[in-house]
Amino acid sequence: MVKIRIGVIGLGRIGKMHLENLANLRECYEVKGIAAPRTPNIAELAEKYDVSFYTRDAQELIINDEIDAVLIASSTNTHAELIEAAAKAGKNIFCEKPVAEEINDIKHALQVVKDNQVKLQIGFDRRFDHNFRTIYDYVQSGKIGDPQIIRISSRDPEPPSIDYIKVSGGLFNDMMIHDFDMARYLSQSEVTEVYAIGDSLIDPEIGKVGDIDTAIVTLKFENGAIGEIDNSRKAVYGHDQRAEVFGSKGKVETDNDRNSNIDFETDDGGHHDKIPKPFQVRYAQAYIDELKEFYNSIEKDESVRVSGTDALRAAQLAQAAQKSLAAGKPVKVEY
Amino acid sequence: MVKIRIGVIGLGRIGKMHLENLANLRECYEVKGIAAPRTPNIAELAEKYDVSFYTRDAQELIINDEIDAVLIASSTNTHAELIEAAAKAGKNIFCEKPVAEEINDIKHALQVVKDNQVKLQIGFDRRFDHNFRTIYDYVQSGKIGDPQIIRISSRDPEPPSIDYIKVSGGLFNDMMIHDFDMARYLSQSEVTEVYAIGDSLIDPEIGKVGDIDTAIVTLKFENGAIGEIDNSRKAVYGHDQRAEVFGSKGKVETDNDRNSNIDFETDDGGHHDKIPKPFQVRYAQAYIDELKEFYNSIEKDESVRVSGTDALRAAQLAQAAQKSLAAGKPVKVEY
Amino acid sequence: MVKIRIGVIGLGRIGKMHLENLANLRECYEVKGIAAPRTPNIAELAEKYDVSFYTRDAQELIINDEIDAVLIASSTNTHAELIEAAAKAGKNIFCEKPVAEEINDIKHALQVVKDNQVKLQIGFDRRFDHNFRTIYDYVQSGKIGDPQIIRISSRDPEPPSIDYIKVSGGLFNDMMIHDFDMARYLSQSEVTEVYAIGDSLIDPEIGKVGDIDTAIVTLKFENGAIGEIDNSRKAVYGHDQRAEVFGSKGKVETDNDRNSNIDFETDDGGHHDKIPKPFQVRYAQAYIDELKEFYNSIEKDESVRVSGTDALRAAQLAQAAQKSLAAGKPVKVEY
Amino acid sequence: MVKIRIGVIGLGRIGKMHLENLANLRECYEVKGIAAPRTPNIAELAEKYDVSFYTRDAQELIINDEIDAVLIASSTNTHAELIEAAAKAGKNIFCEKPVAEEINDIKHALQVVKDNQVKLQIGFDRRFDHNFRTIYDYVQSGKIGDPQIIRISSRDPEPPSIDYIKVSGGLFNDMMIHDFDMARYLSQSEVTEVYAIGDSLIDPEIGKVGDIDTAIVTLKFENGAIGEIDNSRKAVYGHDQRAEVFGSKGKVETDNDRNSNIDFETDDGGHHDKIPKPFQVRYAQAYIDELKEFYNSIEKDESVRVSGTDALRAAQLAQAAQKSLAAGKPVKVEY
Repeated sequence: MVKIRIGVIGLGRIGKMHLENLANLRECYEVKGIAAPRTPNIAELAEKYDVSFYTRDAQELIINDEIDAVLIASSTNTHAELIEAAAKAGKNIFCEKPVAEEINDIKHALQVVKDNQVKLQIGFDRRFDHNFRTIYDYVQSGKIGDPQIIRISSRDPEPPSIDYIKVSGGLFNDMMIHDFDMARYLSQSEVTEVYAIGDSLIDPEIGKVGDIDTAIVTLKFENGAIGEIDNSRKAVYGHDQRAEVFGSKGKVETDNDRNSNIDFETDDGGHHDKIPKPFQVRYAQAYIDELKEFYNSIEKDESVRVSGTDALRAAQLAQAAQKSLAAGKPVKVEY
Repeated sequence: MVKIRIGVIGLGRIGKMHLENLANLRECYEVKGIAAPRTPNIAELAEKYDVSFYTRDAQELIINDEIDAVLIASSTNTHAELIEAAAKAGKNIFCEKPVAEEINDIKHALQVVKDNQVKLQIGFDRRFDHNFRTIYDYVQSGKIGDPQIIRISSRDPEPPSIDYIKVSGGLFNDMMIHDFDMARYLSQSEVTEVYAIGDSLIDPEIGKVGDIDTAIVTLKFENGAIGEIDNSRKAVYGHDQRAEVFGSKGKVETDNDRNSNIDFETDDGGHHDKIPKPFQVRYAQAYIDELKEFYNSIEKDESVRVSGTDALRAAQLAQAAQKSLAAGKPVKVEY
Repeated sequence: MVKIRIGVIGLGRIGKMHLENLANLRECYEVKGIAAPRTPNIAELAEKYDVSFYTRDAQELIINDEIDAVLIASSTNTHAELIEAAAKAGKNIFCEKPVAEEINDIKHALQVVKDNQVKLQIGFDRRFDHNFRTIYDYVQSGKIGDPQIIRISSRDPEPPSIDYIKVSGGLFNDMMIHDFDMARYLSQSEVTEVYAIGDSLIDPEIGKVGDIDTAIVTLKFENGAIGEIDNSRKAVYGHDQRAEVFGSKGKVETDNDRNSNIDFETDDGGHHDKIPKPFQVRYAQAYIDELKEFYNSIEKDESVRVSGTDALRAAQLAQAAQKSLAAGKPVKVEY
Repeated sequence: MVKIRIGVIGLGRIGKMHLENLANLRECYEVKGIAAPRTPNIAELAEKYDVSFYTRDAQELIINDEIDAVLIASSTNTHAELIEAAAKAGKNIFCEKPVAEEINDIKHALQVVKDNQVKLQIGFDRRFDHNFRTIYDYVQSGKIGDPQIIRISSRDPEPPSIDYIKVSGGLFNDMMIHDFDMARYLSQSEVTEVYAIGDSLIDPEIGKVGDIDTAIVTLKFENGAIGEIDNSRKAVYGHDQRAEVFGSKGKVETDNDRNSNIDFETDDGGHHDKIPKPFQVRYAQAYIDELKEFYNSIEKDESVRVSGTDALRAAQLAQAAQKSLAAGKPVKVEY
């Protein structure tokens, strides 16, 4: 196997996690460069991970001849531009979601990718989670027959700060977008209509800045199936993410992982361990596996598991949900 | 404790089950009479259960001085009339759902009950199920904090015959009505708006007679919570009925009972036992417990766990869901 | 089906429970008589259950011509004598365990039963429990292949009184005897050697009267399998009774039933409901099912699920375990 | 934090795994050298992991001044000698189990370690497993009260080759030794007596070479608790390793992890995913965590979680079990 020489752009919390994972996947990747405009200890990081090239300027990294692929984990507003630059430089691209806030910007970036015939994989990490992946495999294999009902629950342990919420694009764009992607992934069909209800039940401040913290969205799919997603910004018991596909031959669903599998029994009943809270723990292996698959897609020249179009569709669904909530009525999704 | 002398009206499948349960609750009830217009072996049944009085005419049973209470399990179209007759005769009443198909008929029957100050308990057996009851107790005790999201899944093992479907009043009236009741029970609030989607995914014949077999309904509650119910007429794996209440302090949900608690592990993975299919097995204890509580309500002169108003509200929700499905938009529930 | 006319001897806690169950199994049984030497309200019980004949003298009941079968739930020291009398009177017999304290008395009673060609079923209720029964069915069907390891845990919620312990015959005879029976039932083989360890870890008073409250016994079976049983007189979390059979093709085990199937999640982890404490709740259905099967065995003239020999073997195992504990070494079981 | 400069001795399957883990723990370790007498691609490995020093001679590595600690994963017969050499060179030592086959050789090595005041951690990886570790924490915290019954099941997915079995030292030394260690760890007490039963039920060839493949051992502990361990060389359903501690206040036990948490329901019942088979997957995180704790013990100068004495005690228990099996009677453990 030939190693892919990769550069990492953006060294915030997610960027650093990807850097660590890439460094440990030493049979797949050689980290050749890192770029971040405002990371003070970039030189230290370069040393720690034995990276020969570092820069404050992402463009410099993108045009570096010794780099075959880039991982973009910089702030959202830079994604589309960096994708386009990397595509034009002929580099394969792994990009954190979302591609852009505006649907047209996403479409433009995808067109550039297409024109330059590079690969683009989006960081919808949950598709690589062992639980959701197994549901997908069951659906794909036909074991559950025709999907008829899709149910997804997705609840964060804590709401983000109000400052973050203000710039987040709203619950549908920031949070449920993962679930819209999951709904498409598990149903293997496109959503044709959404209806959204929701409110700020957790924190009225969230309502004051025009967002909601609790929502349910119903979905109609092209293949006839129907579904729903619920979201909460605050599940005190952990990072609760579950899904269920019900079909003509059976149903498959997944519960959360727990910190351990113990059962503790007392006079008060039975107790089991907590669901992990931080998503980095919840999806630690998924973050590694998405990088392994990105490698495989390039090596074998196969299509990626999460394409740019997947990012576009999820954004279109989020937009439709937002519109439905505002209008108080169902909305047909426009593609 | 004084035994209640009870008469059973209607001796179909459900009526016979109630008769058996009443006979076994010998510390609470003495079955004094049975009435059924078309049950050929009514004399045999009277002998089997040691019942001294039997008749083809329900009115005769209702006016019998030796009877304190009646259990109505006859065909739906007779319920309202029998409730009114029994109320006027001063008898306490246990009646299978629904009270009537028309909202106005229900209201009229409830008024007669009120005027005559008798007790009326409706046969929403699931409220007495050990699983749903425990969820209720958790919500009631404040353990989960303020309810924010209510989710209910309710799937039958097999669709009924097309002939039955034609006269059933439709999925919302015939099947989801139980879940509307459960939603009110678990949320401890009234539903203000519903939006219904659904289709005939299981059997196109069901669609041809104007009904659906698969549905999702979203709910907005007065207390601010939101919720959803899904229904399927055919879950090949059994009688799947689950509920979840998510709140500010935690969530409580229930899985189905199974025929046994075994875990069987092979090279193919782990296997556990089936969910029971027939509702009589699924809710066997609930059917007994609702009769025990009916007894207690009378003996202690306390309010019943499922009132006539509960029947009315569930019917109003079913009607609103039907309207929403037809209109393709959310509908405010009228009370 | 012809009803069996049955008489109940002994009206203590267990006797009353059987009486209630027999009365409710009205398609199988007609309770024709009850007998108890010291039950003050025997006349009331006769009235409650509509039993025409009652007496203080068990022998009177046994010779009553209108009675086809007897259920013996009187004190242990009367069992052998009553079995013999009933057998000589040609009555089929259901008898609570144990048959007698002395092995020779058991053997004598079984001989009389054999000579008189009546049926004798022993009240090892756990064989009828839905969980253990399902394990048995899996083993029987060959699904787990050749049994290799048998593990049984059996723990009571509370130790009995010291006064009871003094006359109980010791933990092996009083408590583990059920598990010896279960070991034979699930392994479908005879035990050839036992080794017992144990101590009074829960209450030193139990040690002072010469008994133990915590024990582990290893088992060698004729078919080559090995196994172990653990017992505790005090599991604060409920009536904990589990079993596992491990074989060449897989393993099957059972967990306890719980009061409900709820899962309650908080910041403190997940919680599930308690294991029921009183054995009457734990085995409520098993107590009913053993009477149904007793009926079927008689009606179809088939062998009973728990024979007198099963009672004898379990007693022999208890005796061997007692001997092993005293000697501090393994003991071959003598049959 | 100061990095520990470590050398790895032995580059077989386990040695390579440790090398990978050490390389990824880049905040704790710098791998300075590797040594293996017969690994053809040692130079390649050195390059892959960026290790500056490699040699065929372990002694050379041990005396290398740039190395602070060694990890010994070479063949068992070299362990004691390498421990002694490393101790004399003042290096901290992580050594795979067992230290030696002969009890006296273990004692000698431990004495040399003690004399030279270096740290020695033994590779009983299961102590670091998230499940067993949680049980330990529950026992340690007093949540289960006084431990009374300890139960451990440990079953491998496949027996090793007959050639391996011949030189393995037998089931107790090769396999149950992990469980003896777990019994001591979870009970927090020493074993005083063992009684072993077992046979070759899986493969008669194993019996022919003088070993067994299925065993149960009972344990008496100093603190009064009793316990048992079962072992099988072949659990067709995966690497089945479970433990339970039952005490005066409750019980805590752990089930196995599974490949995923899905529940798949069909007309045939419910299905869950497999237990992983290879121990490298089962204990992947435990292998990482034991290296993290080794680092912490050195950095903070604290005692290691698994000491040389722990290795000695487990070996003494294995020896006693072997003796018990041969003699057919219980054996007091000599320390």
